[in-house]
Amino acid sequence: MNKPITLYDLVGTDDRRMSPFCWRAKLALAHKGLDFETIPLKFTEKNKLAFSGQEQVPVLVDGDQTVFDSWTIACYLEDKHPGAPSLFSNTSTRALTRIFNHWFDKLVTLKLFPLVVPDNFDVVCPEDLQYYTESRFKWLGKTRDELAAERSEDDFVEWRLSMDPLREQLQEQDFLGGESPLFADYIVFSMFMWARAVSPWPLILPEDVLYPWRERMLDLHDGLARKSKGYDY
Amino acid sequence: MNKPITLYDLVGTDDRRMSPFCWRAKLALAHKGLDFETIPLKFTEKNKLAFSGQEQVPVLVDGDQTVFDSWTIACYLEDKHPGAPSLFSNTSTRALTRIFNHWFDKLVTLKLFPLVVPDNFDVVCPEDLQYYTESRFKWLGKTRDELAAERSEDDFVEWRLSMDPLREQLQEQDFLGGESPLFADYIVFSMFMWARAVSPWPLILPEDVLYPWRERMLDLHDGLARKSKGYDY
Repeated sequence: MNKPITLYDLVGTDDRRMSPFCWRAKLALAHKGLDFETIPLKFTEKNKLAFSGQEQVPVLVDGDQTVFDSWTIACYLEDKHPGAPSLFSNTSTRALTRIFNHWFDKLVTLKLFPLVVPDNFDVVCPEDLQYYTESRFKWLGKTRDELAAERSEDDFVEWRLSMDPLREQLQEQDFLGGESPLFADYIVFSMFMWARAVSPWPLILPEDVLYPWRERMLDLHDGLARKSKGYDY
Repeated sequence: MNKPITLYDLVGTDDRRMSPFCWRAKLALAHKGLDFETIPLKFTEKNKLAFSGQEQVPVLVDGDQTVFDSWTIACYLEDKHPGAPSLFSNTSTRALTRIFNHWFDKLVTLKLFPLVVPDNFDVVCPEDLQYYTESRFKWLGKTRDELAAERSEDDFVEWRLSMDPLREQLQEQDFLGGESPLFADYIVFSMFMWARAVSPWPLILPEDVLYPWRERMLDLHDGLARKSKGYDY
């Protein structure tokens, strides 16, 4: 019998799975219909990844193969399992998805960072608090409490505008991929999964056209995402 | 005999065709193998578009149909001529291309604006100079000469970095679309055509992986782009 695929997956308190990049890999695995197990990993357990030469999750182990980086993992799965549902639809879509990946993270994910980081601090494991403080708050130049005090619903309203190009599509079709999801959907959704895992702040409101899309995404693959620990809104 | 398709096309001195959005429409028409004529239009000749209810080019007239906005024109041509080479490859790619269109213009085209506008001023038709000054320089808050004096090769070096996600693809394949171009290629290339029409500043250097791609784009459709008036570099 084949050993199942394993994925090293960033974890916070109460088994919160909070890495958007790990979510991209997990959803890609589920999309391909593959059995996999996750190995929860704290920020300060990088030593457990030493075998891979990596310091960051996701790291996927599939038999003799070790694959890292969410984009590379998606391409690896797509190329290894061409008969399973495609993550990209075709070569042109793969190319555009890769560029979409860059620009989505730059224009949307990164801008969410200061809004969600204070709550994220509250759910990192106790042994990770020092690491998280040094890597996040020093970089942002503000403390957890300063960031938490500064943010307001207005910031979220403004941030939500960054997703307008997505809304244009998702009011016309169920998924960015059309009738069914593609990796582009997982790229966007993974950011929502990060926020859901760590922050009670409603990232998205019921009247938003993205709301029913997010609900559909939560339900995919037997509710893989919905079953995970997080805040409901 | 059918009347040929006509496209209203922004023009400067020496028949310079300088609108990136008109280039998107022209290249989409050529991609579909359609005969078309362009009607050159100066900034201050908006009255000639009055029949369409529009104030901006591109405006396409195809028999009884009047279509405006480069994205809408591409979709119109794609849907009307499904048997001709596709501009999008499939529905998923169309959705991603639309988002790509937004983000490319935001992250790349718009950032080129202050670098190219001083040269653009020099090639707008004499009767357009006042309009151009009021619409561009007042918006940017600087005069033509201030913008020209401030810019340096360093600005272009930095601006070129904004296209790194495209380079990642174009070092692996001939076009963003794969083996042949798609509308995503025309979106990017149209910006180069705008700059080529108006500015002698070399936007792209021969050692850049985008350089041979741009050369291929210039040659497409019997050299449609290369034959147009512009600066060689």
